[in-house]
Amino acid sequence: MEKTKKYCYGFCLLISIAINILFTINLYVGGGQEISHRPLTWSEKAAVEAEEVAAISCSGHGRAYVDGIVLDGKPVCECHVCYGGTDCSELSPGCATDADGGDPIFMEPFWMQHASDSAVVISGWHRMSYRYADDTMMSKELETYIRKMHSIVKNAVTEGRYVVFGIGSTQLLNAAVYALSSENSSSPSNVLASAPFFPTYKAQTVFFNSENFQFEGDTNSWQSNNSTNNMDVIEFVTSPNNPDGELKDSVIGGKTIYDHAYLWPHFTPITGPSDHDVMIFTLSKLTGHAGTRFGWAIIKDKDIYEKVLSYISFADFGISKDTQLRVLKLLKVAVEGDGQPLFRFSYRKMSDRWDRLTSVMSKSTRFSIQQRHPLHCNFFNETRLPSPAYAWVKCEREEEYDCGAVLEAGKIIGRSGSTFSAEDRYTRLSLIRSQDDFELLLQRLTEFVSLEKGSIETM
Amino acid sequence: MEKTKKYCYGFCLLISIAINILFTINLYVGGGQEISHRPLTWSEKAAVEAEEVAAISCSGHGRAYVDGIVLDGKPVCECHVCYGGTDCSELSPGCATDADGGDPIFMEPFWMQHASDSAVVISGWHRMSYRYADDTMMSKELETYIRKMHSIVKNAVTEGRYVVFGIGSTQLLNAAVYALSSENSSSPSNVLASAPFFPTYKAQTVFFNSENFQFEGDTNSWQSNNSTNNMDVIEFVTSPNNPDGELKDSVIGGKTIYDHAYLWPHFTPITGPSDHDVMIFTLSKLTGHAGTRFGWAIIKDKDIYEKVLSYISFADFGISKDTQLRVLKLLKVAVEGDGQPLFRFSYRKMSDRWDRLTSVMSKSTRFSIQQRHPLHCNFFNETRLPSPAYAWVKCEREEEYDCGAVLEAGKIIGRSGSTFSAEDRYTRLSLIRSQDDFELLLQRLTEFVSLEKGSIETM
Repeated sequence: MEKTKKYCYGFCLLISIAINILFTINLYVGGGQEISHRPLTWSEKAAVEAEEVAAISCSGHGRAYVDGIVLDGKPVCECHVCYGGTDCSELSPGCATDADGGDPIFMEPFWMQHASDSAVVISGWHRMSYRYADDTMMSKELETYIRKMHSIVKNAVTEGRYVVFGIGSTQLLNAAVYALSSENSSSPSNVLASAPFFPTYKAQTVFFNSENFQFEGDTNSWQSNNSTNNMDVIEFVTSPNNPDGELKDSVIGGKTIYDHAYLWPHFTPITGPSDHDVMIFTLSKLTGHAGTRFGWAIIKDKDIYEKVLSYISFADFGISKDTQLRVLKLLKVAVEGDGQPLFRFSYRKMSDRWDRLTSVMSKSTRFSIQQRHPLHCNFFNETRLPSPAYAWVKCEREEEYDCGAVLEAGKIIGRSGSTFSAEDRYTRLSLIRSQDDFELLLQRLTEFVSLEKGSIETM
Repeated sequence: MEKTKKYCYGFCLLISIAINILFTINLYVGGGQEISHRPLTWSEKAAVEAEEVAAISCSGHGRAYVDGIVLDGKPVCECHVCYGGTDCSELSPGCATDADGGDPIFMEPFWMQHASDSAVVISGWHRMSYRYADDTMMSKELETYIRKMHSIVKNAVTEGRYVVFGIGSTQLLNAAVYALSSENSSSPSNVLASAPFFPTYKAQTVFFNSENFQFEGDTNSWQSNNSTNNMDVIEFVTSPNNPDGELKDSVIGGKTIYDHAYLWPHFTPITGPSDHDVMIFTLSKLTGHAGTRFGWAIIKDKDIYEKVLSYISFADFGISKDTQLRVLKLLKVAVEGDGQPLFRFSYRKMSDRWDRLTSVMSKSTRFSIQQRHPLHCNFFNETRLPSPAYAWVKCEREEEYDCGAVLEAGKIIGRSGSTFSAEDRYTRLSLIRSQDDFELLLQRLTEFVSLEKGSIETM
């Protein structure tokens, strides 16, 4: 009896010590992969809140956000287009698919896969000042990572160039026009772009209505119609082009703003580093964070650089420090493994979508899409087809001169050609939206093509 | 012997079980005040990083940030003006104190006291889209808290008004000028302000050089000199005024932009809700987050509201979603306890600084500061003196017409009167900077005054 008791004591003690050891390991190593150096204090509440919201199920067809509308004490699911219900599980059958806009949600799964490295915690007292320690309004650490990204991708020369941040590339487009424009109001600079072109160039220039510049439309029409001697021109060159993905170069050859929003390996083979006086990039089309409103310009000339800085300072006194911190976190992940994980993911996504789109469209005689030509990509070190962000669709039947209306009748919403100063016979369809949006687009296009009388039979 | 062994087993088991219980409590309740509902996964790494950086000691005279320059594997201390060394412990004795700029660091201790509630965790996939679920670029939840804040403080009418967000109030100032200006280029609107006024009004208007408007300077000079009939005027009214803290009203009485950056209970008694067509506020002077670049306008007229929205859209396509999320978090804390904790802290800080400043300056005949008049504050429900963000210092000696130079010789850097379109006999000194900056300022001023031959003896 005593012996049994003794064994029991001994056994229980052993078990108890083992549990202690397990607890101790748990305390110091933590549940995740990371070693917690000390228990969390002030950041834990926010972390718990973020993880709880992230765990809300929206059936894979939507997402709940910590700043979403709150119902019954928790944020509601925000559903993808055509999906509804409290958990986004209900597909509305006759719903029009949205292929308008440039929301780059195709990158979202990458960030969910890299949740731990890309999360950021911002303390209540984080950078309350207008300026950083070096008296600028731009984070030096962030600039370092931007330069690193370009040196990895080899898509732009940054050595000996200035880098300036803006509220998306949107702000920098206008800032660059101001910086390059004439300050002589009697002869404002002529702002031009080659059709089809991104409508913001015109909209911004017209809206700000500055005495320094005026929008003069398409480069080619301007060249043939310009009888004056005012050769003070600022030319926008979008390469790859929005809407059609073409690699472009300056037509006029004077002061030029290179909009390189889409100059990343998932959209186009990188044939060599771009080496121009003013080059503009945006986070939106690199990592997919359109909502973060962050872009940057790489500028050769000190005088132009300082004018862009002045613009930023007068317009809104710099870019939010919270945004800069988050962008830093995202770029740290983006440059990991020399950018291979990020660009492999994004390229695979885009090329898969193009393969499937091409397969459907090849059966059609009613619609055509832009030609793509293989080029050697210095980043992937092989020859590849471009996989542009947008399909530039042409309605081939003579009577179907309003292609947007034709597609809309088939429940596909695109962006009409005239928006880009082209014919309405063209429509832009976005291929960078969520997987749900793409799947619905492909389904609608397939239905369309299968109804064609003259469709090319491949079955 | 057996008995001793038995007791030992029993005792050890008891201790061991006790440790188990303690570990169990630790696991489920955590180190902080909050109960973790589930163990953290993806957010823990960022949380640990943020807490580790926050724990870096900078001797109370500086701060380390997660996005700071990294040296030896961790971000370096960024020291307050006049402090140096790796841990900011070294005060540079002859250093000039900085009372320039409007960095509102006086609020920083409040946010450190409310660390847990004000921290925010942003996931890598947070709001990648350009727009929120309701297709706007502004968070509805955030708008709700902005309205709540005004209804608590009773400083502005928001019922039936539109709210629009901007990149700081800076962006909204210009957006409002565009929205109110003539679209007829042959007679641009005249932009005016009453001296002394905030220099950005002029700088922005001149910089954008729009055909829609032109800067015409001081209201009073304009009224007496204006011989034309062009009464198309846009008047900036800053109330309380920057630099002198005066409550102001429109002089011309036409289209008016009320800049209410400083209309909060820590700077001025709230005498009643402001009820104007266009009112602009900024987070910077409410919570102290200047680096966050967030402001908002309250607008009566739908047409003006839509024009401001257009401006924001053309200028930079909305405000970063990261910023909006952080502002939401901060305002949630700010409205707690009907704003009493926040405004009690900030008012106490400002009134203490004014008490000490007044005590020093009352001994001087060389310098004077603005008069302050008590008013009933509807927020605190008692009569109080204003405690403006800036001291508006006048050099009283006739020969000391450049007051900034006089102060600079005494190692005090202010902002000269001419910056505000006033005489250089005046200088603005900031009272909203860090405690270190304020203490140094007061020390320098005390030295200055004690050296005065004609100083008023109170000892």
